[in-house]
Amino acid sequence: MNPAHPLPSEKQLALKSAIREIPDFPKKGILFYDITTLLKDPMSFSVILGELAAPYKEAGIRKVVAIEARGFIFGAPLAHHLRAGFVPIRKPGKLPSDVYESTYSLEYGNSTIAVHRDAIARGERVLLVDDLLATGGTMAAAVDLVKRLGGEIFGLAFLVELTDLKGRDKLKGYDIRSLIQY
Amino acid sequence: MNPAHPLPSEKQLALKSAIREIPDFPKKGILFYDITTLLKDPMSFSVILGELAAPYKEAGIRKVVAIEARGFIFGAPLAHHLRAGFVPIRKPGKLPSDVYESTYSLEYGNSTIAVHRDAIARGERVLLVDDLLATGGTMAAAVDLVKRLGGEIFGLAFLVELTDLKGRDKLKGYDIRSLIQY
Repeated sequence: MNPAHPLPSEKQLALKSAIREIPDFPKKGILFYDITTLLKDPMSFSVILGELAAPYKEAGIRKVVAIEARGFIFGAPLAHHLRAGFVPIRKPGKLPSDVYESTYSLEYGNSTIAVHRDAIARGERVLLVDDLLATGGTMAAAVDLVKRLGGEIFGLAFLVELTDLKGRDKLKGYDIRSLIQY
Repeated sequence: MNPAHPLPSEKQLALKSAIREIPDFPKKGILFYDITTLLKDPMSFSVILGELAAPYKEAGIRKVVAIEARGFIFGAPLAHHLRAGFVPIRKPGKLPSDVYESTYSLEYGNSTIAVHRDAIARGERVLLVDDLLATGGTMAAAVDLVKRLGGEIFGLAFLVELTDLKGRDKLKGYDIRSLIQY
């Protein structure tokens, strides 16, 4: 379960020290990694954006696709940095034109995400971005959407990965990178 | 009602041509300005981020505050560009630590937004960002939150302003800039 592309441990430690750990959120027994303390520090925010973008600089990424809402915080600067277009994946009812939707299972019940049908042209090279890789269900649904649009998925990038939840198992065959592993 | 800092009209026209107009969304009689067609074009996205950031380059902005979810798409790259920290304002229940909340009126009913109490230090210079200035209710609630944290509000920046809705009237006394006016 070791990630294929770990950050050096001293860099990870520095970033982890800027992340606030909150027990029992959103419910009893869950330890929540609060990244707002990292985002509000200009140096940390700059470091993570640089590290997230670095592997893709020469990759010819045409679209950066990010998942509402926290994914936008990383996906939008990455798109700008890589000179790619930005594509939001959103909750149903938020995107005003024709969409594809994908539904996935949560611990209790289901959730659905949507993308505009004209967001990606067939064959365009795509990077998908989100803040957190947990069980991988949301990203697997996002991958499904990009494939239906004909996008060529170059990689999946996350700020944080919870390795015990084995999200990589749901995303087999893709290049997955995360900066911080717990 | 002319905005104080308009973009030259040929630049506005170029950006408007990249925005898709969708009648009757989210409901009958509303003309929705869909910015996803602008975001997915790397050149347009780069132009708007550059134009949004330009007035604040030497302003000593310490925190860029953006409102969930579309505000993140502009606020996060702006924070990076201005070497400021990024602060998300979110729907209630999303932020895991101690928050302040502010409630404002919508056409039907109310809505509430929240910010972490430690997001801004007293006296820090703040830029608030959102995609759209309509009636100004959401941004007025965000201004209220930043003031309760003791932030010094330097300005309010929007991509699009619907001038007929007179949002500026709710935000008197602040420096307001929008790139595109309808």
